[in-house]
Amino acid sequence: MTKQANFGVVGMAVMGKNLALNVESRGYTVALYNRTTSKTEEVIAEHPDKNLVLTKTLEEFVATIEKPRRIMLMVQAGKGTDAVIQQLLPLLDKGDILIDGGNTHFPDTMRRNAELADSGINFIGTGVSGGEKGALLGPSMMPGGQKEAYDLVAPIFEQIAAKAPQDGAPCVAYMGPNGAGHFVKMVHNGIEYGDMQLIAESYDLLKRVLGLDNAEIQSIFEEWNEGELDSYLIEITKEVLKRKDDEGTDGYIVDKILDKAGNKGTGKWTSQSALDLGVPLPLITESVFARYISTYKDERVKASKVLAGPTVAFDGDKKEIIEKIRQALYFSKIMSYAQGFAQLRKASTENDWNLPFATIASIWRAGCIIRAQFLQKITDAYTTNPELENLLLDDYFVEITKKYQESVREVVALSVKEGIPAPTFSSAIAYYDSYRSESLPANLIQAQRDYFGAHTYERTDKSGSFHYDWYTED
Amino acid sequence: MTKQANFGVVGMAVMGKNLALNVESRGYTVALYNRTTSKTEEVIAEHPDKNLVLTKTLEEFVATIEKPRRIMLMVQAGKGTDAVIQQLLPLLDKGDILIDGGNTHFPDTMRRNAELADSGINFIGTGVSGGEKGALLGPSMMPGGQKEAYDLVAPIFEQIAAKAPQDGAPCVAYMGPNGAGHFVKMVHNGIEYGDMQLIAESYDLLKRVLGLDNAEIQSIFEEWNEGELDSYLIEITKEVLKRKDDEGTDGYIVDKILDKAGNKGTGKWTSQSALDLGVPLPLITESVFARYISTYKDERVKASKVLAGPTVAFDGDKKEIIEKIRQALYFSKIMSYAQGFAQLRKASTENDWNLPFATIASIWRAGCIIRAQFLQKITDAYTTNPELENLLLDDYFVEITKKYQESVREVVALSVKEGIPAPTFSSAIAYYDSYRSESLPANLIQAQRDYFGAHTYERTDKSGSFHYDWYTED
Repeated sequence: MTKQANFGVVGMAVMGKNLALNVESRGYTVALYNRTTSKTEEVIAEHPDKNLVLTKTLEEFVATIEKPRRIMLMVQAGKGTDAVIQQLLPLLDKGDILIDGGNTHFPDTMRRNAELADSGINFIGTGVSGGEKGALLGPSMMPGGQKEAYDLVAPIFEQIAAKAPQDGAPCVAYMGPNGAGHFVKMVHNGIEYGDMQLIAESYDLLKRVLGLDNAEIQSIFEEWNEGELDSYLIEITKEVLKRKDDEGTDGYIVDKILDKAGNKGTGKWTSQSALDLGVPLPLITESVFARYISTYKDERVKASKVLAGPTVAFDGDKKEIIEKIRQALYFSKIMSYAQGFAQLRKASTENDWNLPFATIASIWRAGCIIRAQFLQKITDAYTTNPELENLLLDDYFVEITKKYQESVREVVALSVKEGIPAPTFSSAIAYYDSYRSESLPANLIQAQRDYFGAHTYERTDKSGSFHYDWYTED
Repeated sequence: MTKQANFGVVGMAVMGKNLALNVESRGYTVALYNRTTSKTEEVIAEHPDKNLVLTKTLEEFVATIEKPRRIMLMVQAGKGTDAVIQQLLPLLDKGDILIDGGNTHFPDTMRRNAELADSGINFIGTGVSGGEKGALLGPSMMPGGQKEAYDLVAPIFEQIAAKAPQDGAPCVAYMGPNGAGHFVKMVHNGIEYGDMQLIAESYDLLKRVLGLDNAEIQSIFEEWNEGELDSYLIEITKEVLKRKDDEGTDGYIVDKILDKAGNKGTGKWTSQSALDLGVPLPLITESVFARYISTYKDERVKASKVLAGPTVAFDGDKKEIIEKIRQALYFSKIMSYAQGFAQLRKASTENDWNLPFATIASIWRAGCIIRAQFLQKITDAYTTNPELENLLLDDYFVEITKKYQESVREVVALSVKEGIPAPTFSSAIAYYDSYRSESLPANLIQAQRDYFGAHTYERTDKSGSFHYDWYTED
């Protein structure tokens, strides 16, 4: 007789294995299943004293778990997930809960949630951030789906999630119906792209404009991590910059790594969603494009030999400009999050998700890749005003942008004059100046559209839709 | 007995009507059909002496046209097009040619082309640019589909298309199989968004930084239109800026138009496609986002009252900076086209379209919204080297960017310091400096990705995929 399990995990790759171990460590018995049984056997063999139950078929797996079953799928996003769901479906009972913990595109989660609901099966799509280590020791989790189903999962998720250092709160909370959880995770990843690009541009300016070496740059990031920039990504940057090559050459590993950035598509999804929603998301999108342009290495090498640019000739006060770069980084980070939260807000309205903005920022305070002290400011802003249209209208952000905006201007002007690209810094100040412009030149665009396509326009002085008779000369 | 028609048009809205009249004017008899017959009757009544054939049912319409039938659909893109195709399908014979002249999203054209091919029906998807006037007097057309089918349409299309002023060549050519034509049209529209935003930013800098009035700005655009910026969009800008309000108030119409820019989604499609293709398309994308941010008028008004920025205090030489803005506009336009053509190139490879880049630029020289003298330079570049990886590597563009890059830097620095947003100018110089950077800071991004997600990286000194043991301290 196998003992009844409280929870099941399908998929014994590293993320599934680590999540199962995390759940088990909180006092639960966990049933394990993997298409290739030897993989499950390995996990059991590695952890002989744990309350893990080996199952060799999905029938056995399902039979082992107490009802209503809580089954987490940690398989390849896309077709892999659909295949497992199809195999599980005839084995499940009404009220059972399938939980997809993969990096699933939110429209797929919306579709699966609706399809399974027809069979009485609950479907939770949850973002899981924090990588392998997070899965084992405490991830940040963003679940969406049937609320009453999530309530049955919540006790476990709250135990396995990371705890915020500020107040010990678990970094997991119900995001909303159907695709809400995976949508929030997608925006989290988009923000991650932006944060990484902002750090990369800061590093590049310190290196190429100020001419600092790795040790100097490393100590700057170390110092920055003590202040308002305190975050996981700054922390690992200072770690990365310390490390020596591991392949026997002299020097630092960072200098041996090829400057072609990969991506898994979640940043792209975030930008494409913003384009669909009609929400301006320039900073994250520039960071996606910055990764793309990095992949054109051969062309860049060619171009570097023929395209003209200034010779770097910085002769200002290095210490002063380093502080300005720090302020520019913090300011630009604010623009990125303001855009990301504006996207969440629009998606929430369009999909009737009722996303909890303050909570979203609070569950990102630990466990996930973008964890940062700074997120508390966002939680505070949305706690004060849950209907806040844009973070930039909150008092704290009004004050801090006022304090730092001059520095961003100087840093962007410097980068442009020295010829060192800073696409996300530039985009940040352009967004800020656009957002605070009572009038933008879109009136001219509307006039042009009405001229060539009779698209009509609104007026400033009365409501309605107007068309001008452009082809009759005055 | 109705006489046999050489060509048929379905859809008697203004674009369909005008195209039919254009075809008729070249000596062809054209059968007309519209779901609501009264609309067709109106067209016939307006043009009693023309060789237009009224048909009241699709059966009658199809029976009226000589075989192989050439039938142009000018109906609503999307479901409207699918509905008409389904109704026509049983009435057609093998070898007939359906031509979709709507603003169709290229994946739909790819799907329809494949579906209809199964029934032996040819399907041409063609971009038609130039608005109502273009449809009547000579549009620029970008057809894609079966080559042998297009050859049967070409004699008509070449007669109705605009003719390039440089050499009298018709502004139409075969783009490639299935969705190639609608893809090229989509990128055309994306470029149009970029061009319009660049003009809008120039206008805004002239107005808000230099403090010029409409008449002064008007004469600047008039002058610019005499030089290398000579183009339809600059031309209509100078026209727009002349016009007085038509609703009885004093002053210019441009000042009465609300600064909320609309869009029909083709710019968005272009950006989303670039994101899918892995091609950096920051300028067009910033122009889409600039339209989006303009629609947040109420928030901008609020933000303008609380967010800090510099007070405009320009005291330089106006004449000098006006010329620099002109150079920045031309330079940025080049960046936009370089990105758009890089997107065409990648799509061509991915879809086996074999797009004719030199020809694409040449058929945009007249008839369409982005028509401009400048396009000749692109045709020349791809004629010299059809395999050119990026326009920026062509001699002319190397020379002109060398000449103008300093001005863009000054204009962007000025806009940033004065607090007037110039998102596409900023993005243009960031792209240029990224593209000409032999080394970008993507090495740091790869290190971070390997640190938190074990995503691996390549090295500069040997090939292969590497992972660093980050968690073991030195």
